[in-house]
Amino acid sequence: MDVDGASLEAARGHGHFLERVTAMLREEGFIGQPSRSQPVVQFSHPDKLQEVLRLGLGAATVDEDELLAVARDVVRQSVRTGHPQFHNQLYGGADPFGVAGAWITEALNTSQYTFEVAPAFTLIEHKVIEHVLAKVGFSNGDGIFTPGGSVANMYAMVAARYKMFPQVKSEGVRALPPLAFFTSYDSHYSIQKGAHWLGVGTNSIIKVATDAEGRMQAAELRDAILEARRGGRQPCMVNATVGTTVLGAIDPLDQVADVCQELGVWLHVDACWGGSLLLSPTHKSRLDGLSRADSVAWNPHKMLGAPLQCSMFLVRHKGLLHKCNSAAATYLFQQDKFYDVSWDTGDKSMQCGRKVDAFKLWLLWKARGDDGLAALVDNAMACASYFRSRVQQTEGFRLVAQGLDCTNVCFWYIPPSLRGQTEDEQWWARMAAVAPAIKERLVLAGTLLIGYCPLQHRGHVNFFRMVTTCQPPATREDMDLAIREIQRHGEAL
Amino acid sequence: MDVDGASLEAARGHGHFLERVTAMLREEGFIGQPSRSQPVVQFSHPDKLQEVLRLGLGAATVDEDELLAVARDVVRQSVRTGHPQFHNQLYGGADPFGVAGAWITEALNTSQYTFEVAPAFTLIEHKVIEHVLAKVGFSNGDGIFTPGGSVANMYAMVAARYKMFPQVKSEGVRALPPLAFFTSYDSHYSIQKGAHWLGVGTNSIIKVATDAEGRMQAAELRDAILEARRGGRQPCMVNATVGTTVLGAIDPLDQVADVCQELGVWLHVDACWGGSLLLSPTHKSRLDGLSRADSVAWNPHKMLGAPLQCSMFLVRHKGLLHKCNSAAATYLFQQDKFYDVSWDTGDKSMQCGRKVDAFKLWLLWKARGDDGLAALVDNAMACASYFRSRVQQTEGFRLVAQGLDCTNVCFWYIPPSLRGQTEDEQWWARMAAVAPAIKERLVLAGTLLIGYCPLQHRGHVNFFRMVTTCQPPATREDMDLAIREIQRHGEAL
Repeated sequence: MDVDGASLEAARGHGHFLERVTAMLREEGFIGQPSRSQPVVQFSHPDKLQEVLRLGLGAATVDEDELLAVARDVVRQSVRTGHPQFHNQLYGGADPFGVAGAWITEALNTSQYTFEVAPAFTLIEHKVIEHVLAKVGFSNGDGIFTPGGSVANMYAMVAARYKMFPQVKSEGVRALPPLAFFTSYDSHYSIQKGAHWLGVGTNSIIKVATDAEGRMQAAELRDAILEARRGGRQPCMVNATVGTTVLGAIDPLDQVADVCQELGVWLHVDACWGGSLLLSPTHKSRLDGLSRADSVAWNPHKMLGAPLQCSMFLVRHKGLLHKCNSAAATYLFQQDKFYDVSWDTGDKSMQCGRKVDAFKLWLLWKARGDDGLAALVDNAMACASYFRSRVQQTEGFRLVAQGLDCTNVCFWYIPPSLRGQTEDEQWWARMAAVAPAIKERLVLAGTLLIGYCPLQHRGHVNFFRMVTTCQPPATREDMDLAIREIQRHGEAL
Repeated sequence: MDVDGASLEAARGHGHFLERVTAMLREEGFIGQPSRSQPVVQFSHPDKLQEVLRLGLGAATVDEDELLAVARDVVRQSVRTGHPQFHNQLYGGADPFGVAGAWITEALNTSQYTFEVAPAFTLIEHKVIEHVLAKVGFSNGDGIFTPGGSVANMYAMVAARYKMFPQVKSEGVRALPPLAFFTSYDSHYSIQKGAHWLGVGTNSIIKVATDAEGRMQAAELRDAILEARRGGRQPCMVNATVGTTVLGAIDPLDQVADVCQELGVWLHVDACWGGSLLLSPTHKSRLDGLSRADSVAWNPHKMLGAPLQCSMFLVRHKGLLHKCNSAAATYLFQQDKFYDVSWDTGDKSMQCGRKVDAFKLWLLWKARGDDGLAALVDNAMACASYFRSRVQQTEGFRLVAQGLDCTNVCFWYIPPSLRGQTEDEQWWARMAAVAPAIKERLVLAGTLLIGYCPLQHRGHVNFFRMVTTCQPPATREDMDLAIREIQRHGEAL
């Protein structure tokens, strides 16, 4: 064998690099108690950052000391999503027990497709899904972990289409009548991306009006479905949202379910963001009607703090996932294996190899218990509620929507120079520049990361979106600090 | 705030659980030097395993000691994919430096969609893709990490379709002529699953004949494309394979590229398995012609040993990914941010949140260097070659195919009781039961995990498939042991 023996020896005999990495992560504050004294980010522009990081790949080996230094640079130049002042996305810090689960999964390096190579993980995925199905209220349902919520929503579109027209699997969309999918103006763009990928086209998406809080109007939905039918289109699926991306609105599920039931349309609920409220006895009534859905998508990697990626697709109809997605590849899903192959999940999936995403959720769930998770969700909601009251009571702050369905609090900050003026087009044009300007200052100061965006379909110019998640658990003081930081960087604008 | 204070305190103040997990993984032999004395697996049937693992989720919190014990049970009941006798799948052990990278990614918990929340990881993904594009030979290409090879192949189908018919994005497949996708009989089933998901239907897949080694016959491909055209179908994409799943065959890329070029059809190369050969100066010529492709899928989580999931989709046409997949969501991809937003990768993706899969590959690549990776690939190939020679020379073993394009060595084991007989239908029917029977014994003994399958389209009954990967580096002794174990468990059949 004409192989470089020294390289192979090095590949075999590695020391305690993982322990050194763990120590480095703790030194840099990326594991362990989050520190409020560190910046959320030390921002460098891309060109500058390229000089700081030793990015190059080449022929030579880098030794462990240098590798650790290189990795430390990367860590230092990364955003602290676990910082109490990270409110930039619909995820935050990772639950430390979730990280522990993720580390185990990575070290064990297997694929979730057969019991044969993932015996414990197969049972664990099954158990987690069973536990969640019970909370959703699907008594004979099924589910699968997916690489993110967009893919979970695509699973729903594919399943709804297949249930209605099983011939689509072999014959494709051309053999079907024109389909129509319904979703609200405030829903997530993954439905659009799905429409393109799945070959139905974005024109097949019919957007339904929402109210001032961003909630789908069920009467409008009903009209839209009937109109689509009159126009010769086959209504295929309604996508309702539990926790819209920007406003955090929860569509009125019971009303939407009434419409879907009356008109015989598949109801999918994109609960990627707000699904975690189901774990709270205090807040779960916000999702009343969820049990009437045909399918649900939920991302525990969002509010709950499971490490990314952790998403699941749940479906009321047992057996459908397998029938819909199977390709029955004999090299992987041999039916003459000596164990009960009905445990093999691979042929329910649109993937082949599938990362184990269930274990980290299971481990953190065991660590926290239902009660602990409920307390964390309640805390996130309570802090958001407190933040909203601060926005309502603080001069220069103004809510975009009044509701608080999830932990989103959207608001404008009006700098002193713009207060008390006629709010005409020009004024709003100036307001549009405020949030980006404050955001730049916040990033450069590294004190607070918070998102901003416009909502064109509502005519809203740029505003901030505060969100709280379970990890790390927020405090009132964190909320006060966020208010102060926006004031500090905005008052001179 | 009406929240359980004690739970929150527990959520904040966690000790050194990650260090304890790391120690446990080392004690159990899942990190560090792989041990040949441990079993590859300690098999329990699902029902039994459910009793062993403490699967239940409930209201109460589990303390760290119990959690560690629970996790240890899971680890002990898991398959040692990093064991030298794990040859069951097209992946093996994870490269320890890859695991280090994965652990860092998990601890940092961010999403790959914007530079804003993943500055270092954005540059690193860009760098890795740039490095790989150069090896593929795409001078002005683009790429993205995807959750697995099946999704990467779907990216190709979507991109090819969009390039030919951009209106598909809004109007869907119904507005297009019937499409045809070409792939060999020995190619991966993800093309079938993709056809269903993407709305073109599995009937749009035209299978092309392969030779005795499992390689696509370019002349047959040409005929198939012309026939599809005559039948009123629009040839959309040819999928060539570098490393078929079972036989490991590499399609003749230059010949296939000639056909695609002549007839103007997008050439996608599914190099998920065999793409790693490109890193070896000794073996890269097997992929000659790859640079003529329009797109390539490669899974470093297979042969190379990057932890699962680590897949990429590469495309020759810069700008196409973004045009094809963008939805331009203003809440995430604000164009008025203060940095160069062309670095934001999120709108090239079919996902929204996207796990950071590039960093672990980058870190292991830095650790090994091009040369070290080449040596590991060469070793995997050399061991497979040695194993093949053992199959050729050992009584009772018989090769299914003669070639060795990748590290797949497919073979039957003929037990003494079946040797020297007429190989009629009955004989083959008895042979079909041999591999499953030996497999069961191997699993229960825990000494060797090796896959088996039939190949119906070739009329082959169950045979074994040996595969070697980079991690852990195999030795001739490992190969000899695999031969002996099959003999030991098969000779009495």
